[in-house]
Amino acid sequence: MSTVSPPQNPEANPKVKIVFDDIRATRGSNFINNLWHYLAFDPELLESTWNEVKTIMAKPSNLDPMTKELIYAAVSIANSCEYCIHSHTAAARAKGMSDEQYAEFLSIVSLAGRTNHLLNGIKVPIDPEFDHENNG
Amino acid sequence: MSTVSPPQNPEANPKVKIVFDDIRATRGSNFINNLWHYLAFDPELLESTWNEVKTIMAKPSNLDPMTKELIYAAVSIANSCEYCIHSHTAAARAKGMSDEQYAEFLSIVSLAGRTNHLLNGIKVPIDPEFDHENNG
Amino acid sequence: MSTVSPPQNPEANPKVKIVFDDIRATRGSNFINNLWHYLAFDPELLESTWNEVKTIMAKPSNLDPMTKELIYAAVSIANSCEYCIHSHTAAARAKGMSDEQYAEFLSIVSLAGRTNHLLNGIKVPIDPEFDHENNG
Amino acid sequence: MSTVSPPQNPEANPKVKIVFDDIRATRGSNFINNLWHYLAFDPELLESTWNEVKTIMAKPSNLDPMTKELIYAAVSIANSCEYCIHSHTAAARAKGMSDEQYAEFLSIVSLAGRTNHLLNGIKVPIDPEFDHENNG
Amino acid sequence: MSTVSPPQNPEANPKVKIVFDDIRATRGSNFINNLWHYLAFDPELLESTWNEVKTIMAKPSNLDPMTKELIYAAVSIANSCEYCIHSHTAAARAKGMSDEQYAEFLSIVSLAGRTNHLLNGIKVPIDPEFDHENNG
Amino acid sequence: MSTVSPPQNPEANPKVKIVFDDIRATRGSNFINNLWHYLAFDPELLESTWNEVKTIMAKPSNLDPMTKELIYAAVSIANSCEYCIHSHTAAARAKGMSDEQYAEFLSIVSLAGRTNHLLNGIKVPIDPEFDHENNG
Repeated sequence: MSTVSPPQNPEANPKVKIVFDDIRATRGSNFINNLWHYLAFDPELLESTWNEVKTIMAKPSNLDPMTKELIYAAVSIANSCEYCIHSHTAAARAKGMSDEQYAEFLSIVSLAGRTNHLLNGIKVPIDPEFDHENNG
Repeated sequence: MSTVSPPQNPEANPKVKIVFDDIRATRGSNFINNLWHYLAFDPELLESTWNEVKTIMAKPSNLDPMTKELIYAAVSIANSCEYCIHSHTAAARAKGMSDEQYAEFLSIVSLAGRTNHLLNGIKVPIDPEFDHENNG
Repeated sequence: MSTVSPPQNPEANPKVKIVFDDIRATRGSNFINNLWHYLAFDPELLESTWNEVKTIMAKPSNLDPMTKELIYAAVSIANSCEYCIHSHTAAARAKGMSDEQYAEFLSIVSLAGRTNHLLNGIKVPIDPEFDHENNG
Repeated sequence: MSTVSPPQNPEANPKVKIVFDDIRATRGSNFINNLWHYLAFDPELLESTWNEVKTIMAKPSNLDPMTKELIYAAVSIANSCEYCIHSHTAAARAKGMSDEQYAEFLSIVSLAGRTNHLLNGIKVPIDPEFDHENNG
Repeated sequence: MSTVSPPQNPEANPKVKIVFDDIRATRGSNFINNLWHYLAFDPELLESTWNEVKTIMAKPSNLDPMTKELIYAAVSIANSCEYCIHSHTAAARAKGMSDEQYAEFLSIVSLAGRTNHLLNGIKVPIDPEFDHENNG
Repeated sequence: MSTVSPPQNPEANPKVKIVFDDIRATRGSNFINNLWHYLAFDPELLESTWNEVKTIMAKPSNLDPMTKELIYAAVSIANSCEYCIHSHTAAARAKGMSDEQYAEFLSIVSLAGRTNHLLNGIKVPIDPEFDHENNG
């Protein structure tokens, strides 16, 4: 059950059609995943979301594409966003992630979950050495 | 204010000394950050935490060291663990992260925060195409 | 799968019947949603939960009814409570929320998700100007 | 301690100056809060964040300005973003929130926290009646 | 910095005085912690919060007092509520928690943090054997 | 849908067989729940996770077994880990939790959810009396 309904014929709306065309062109694929179909219930929200995703995830970058998907998936796991976990894990695989890398990714994410809880419980004071202004 | 007190002279305990020596040897540095000083209130907890961190973060790996710190920091931001955010951001810088890469990291983490909330609100059904068994 | 079973004939318990009658009277409807059926496994927990919900959500208020549901839904999205997201989004619609307002609500919730992650990552110091004691 | 340093003279950078000028003009105030000073470490991140905040929070809207700040603050509380809690509570006060309204807001947010945990624990199945497609 | 100001002379308000007297009587102590001083900004919110805490935490119970504080603290750590972490850890100590028990508590909380992230990442299907209706 | 596939015949891998044998021996049962079947996609991750769970949950302890499961379940609820909620609620029942105790557990977890949000919203300053160094 979703809280909005995807429009039956989304590309009848010219604003939606422009976004869908851009998704297809940017990704070099005809597949448009559900997220965009559902967001089409409000073409403005669709457009602003897509523009942000495209700007950040598809632009020339100082981080490699798989790393970017892993960062995205890590946040999504911590936030329990099931859709995002599946879409960005699939994207990381599409960008070359091996099973070994995925196992290692999971071990880091879960180690972070462990020490995040440990440190939040103890409230260890932050070392001044971590301040980048002291170390630059 | 912390919920435990770090022992005054932690290395008087031989179990703690072994861990502290291993931290220094593994990192090639005499600096032992507060986390380990506070965990020394319970040498067993100290030992198991360090062994896990060492195994996962310091072993030969299929992911590069900076990427591992970025994954760790991403989870820590989503979980609001202030200590972990500072320690792993500092570690990412120590492993070569530039200001440009950090800005890009922050933009991905916050984009994930945005779409995690959007998707959790709408509850978009997951595309079968994301299933790795269908696509492998 | 749920972790408790709703009793087969909950209103056989007089404490449950009083609560269910009050739910029907307060809402002017015979529909009693699953939450209350499941909570009936422990009549005391049912009663205290309903009394709290009634006191806060149904009393004369300084906030309009739709706004109250939006605040409730916003927290529920951030906490990934699927049941609460559906029930309070439905309640907001029942209290007049249009599709345009829902799209705007989602855009604010997801913007907050974005800047929450950005600010938690950077740990910007809080401006003294935000202190209401300085500004009253 | 922050993970980035705000530039000493941010408006020497023309991109930053354009954003800062726009913040002052949009808000009709010379006060620029710390968030923007810190984001100025990366003018592109500053610009995209401000544009998004401006588009969503300052545009003509179907929700009143105080309600928008309350939704923002509700998400920020659930996500433990201390800076965002302070800035958006202050903004809600600036847009007319009374002490009585704030107390009521807090009671709704904390009731949501309560039932979110209760429902996430029990995993109550979602009523089909909540599906807007069944009820529109 | 707090988002409300505690009243200077809270017990001048008779509703507040009744609650404060009840806190002192219930706890057998003259110490009233900051939470109640701050909540006194809205006597109704103060009263409903105290009544709930008293009903749940101070009533005759099927769980021992220290266990109840540990459950409370565990949730508070996962939610990053710094005040609640400190108050309920202190309460658990006051109710007999030893350093060894606290270390064990922390190890369980952080193990849960670890496997929560691992399972949320993998999305393992839930075993039907966990359904209490199949096993009662 | 899961992000990994459990191997068809996991115990063909000797490392997996050792872990599965140890799970059966430690628990005195032939039932191996899905978590371990899925983790078998990476025998090293399986082994390290099981060793940690066994060390913490099955060792001689200063906390009783049911209390340990309740702490685990409390964190899992706050983190919205559906699998963990079901497995540790079932484990608490297996270790003697009654319906009355479960209702009380839920009331504490949801009260914590309530006051966590309330306190995170108000940002009440922490009482120095909570510092165990002042009170030991």
